[in-house]
Amino acid sequence: MLLYNSRVSGNCYKVRLLLAHLGVAYERREVDVADRSNRPALLGGLNPALRVPTLVLDDGRSLGESGAILWYFGEGTRFVPDDPYERAQVLQWMFFEQYDHEPAIAVVRFWLAYSGRPVEDFADRLDERRAAGYRALDALEGHLEGRSWLVGDSMTLADIALYAYTHVAQEGGFELERYPAIHAWLERVASQPGHVRIDA
Amino acid sequence: MLLYNSRVSGNCYKVRLLLAHLGVAYERREVDVADRSNRPALLGGLNPALRVPTLVLDDGRSLGESGAILWYFGEGTRFVPDDPYERAQVLQWMFFEQYDHEPAIAVVRFWLAYSGRPVEDFADRLDERRAAGYRALDALEGHLEGRSWLVGDSMTLADIALYAYTHVAQEGGFELERYPAIHAWLERVASQPGHVRIDA
Repeated sequence: MLLYNSRVSGNCYKVRLLLAHLGVAYERREVDVADRSNRPALLGGLNPALRVPTLVLDDGRSLGESGAILWYFGEGTRFVPDDPYERAQVLQWMFFEQYDHEPAIAVVRFWLAYSGRPVEDFADRLDERRAAGYRALDALEGHLEGRSWLVGDSMTLADIALYAYTHVAQEGGFELERYPAIHAWLERVASQPGHVRIDA
Repeated sequence: MLLYNSRVSGNCYKVRLLLAHLGVAYERREVDVADRSNRPALLGGLNPALRVPTLVLDDGRSLGESGAILWYFGEGTRFVPDDPYERAQVLQWMFFEQYDHEPAIAVVRFWLAYSGRPVEDFADRLDERRAAGYRALDALEGHLEGRSWLVGDSMTLADIALYAYTHVAQEGGFELERYPAIHAWLERVASQPGHVRIDA
């Protein structure tokens, strides 16, 4: 099994973290996230979005979108609940992450820490994206107050999906000190047996 | 069952279209999509993202994110395949829609047709968002060439999710005439027994 991967991408890290927990073996092929010019040659035919992560199964079938890859490997394991409402709640948080959280927090992190470009290039959008990121963190904090996990009483795909970019949000200048429930939850996720770091 | 709804939102229409196909009854409460000032009072505690659609089940439990609501009602019906890989493909297209397609096509449509603001207000972002929308349509067209449905050989949640904003993309100035496979697929979705229009 082959994962088209980026070391710095939280979306790829979600997949690596789940596969580590599940003990599933795979190979990696690193893809540049700043220079995307070779994407059509590399990922055309494998992923209509031309993004990483893209996974190629042993039989040659491919799958894109971190959320879809997580679901493919997570269904039938402890990371996806059996209860239909809880399953939908897991997906709710995964869609929230891709719509509200990642396009703010991951994007600002990329601009500031990995794009190789000066911050002035993003000046016209930075304030708006930072405010959107804090709104997403506020929503996450509010939900985690009094809870150990996002859905139910154990770690699910929702926690893996939200952990990925939240735990490196400081690289985008987001101040996590304001968020005690998020802070405790990040520690909880990282202390699970089988956890691997984003740079592993 | 109560759906916090917007008549013009494609995300809400996805839910209404699936529930129509399944013959599930519900009430609607209209939410303003231009003036969002009452969202915390209306949706706080029901949906951390404060967006529509938000669904409140008969037992009072709530669910947000169109994709999660679709999955909740779609699992176990003909709109979600049994095969694990096909299930993941359905989610791949649903995540693609929320990450690449909706933030371009739905956003431009909202700016031009429903925001009540002059186009000059969005001039600095319009070209980039329109190019992103055409990239999403190109990906959709490429996949639909030679296929009747996005996943497998019948309509799934993926078709419902992508249909919602694609079929009104012209309201955002997107020219669908360039896309014969998309055009045929839109007709196919609309001709299914049980189909309802966005303004129904």
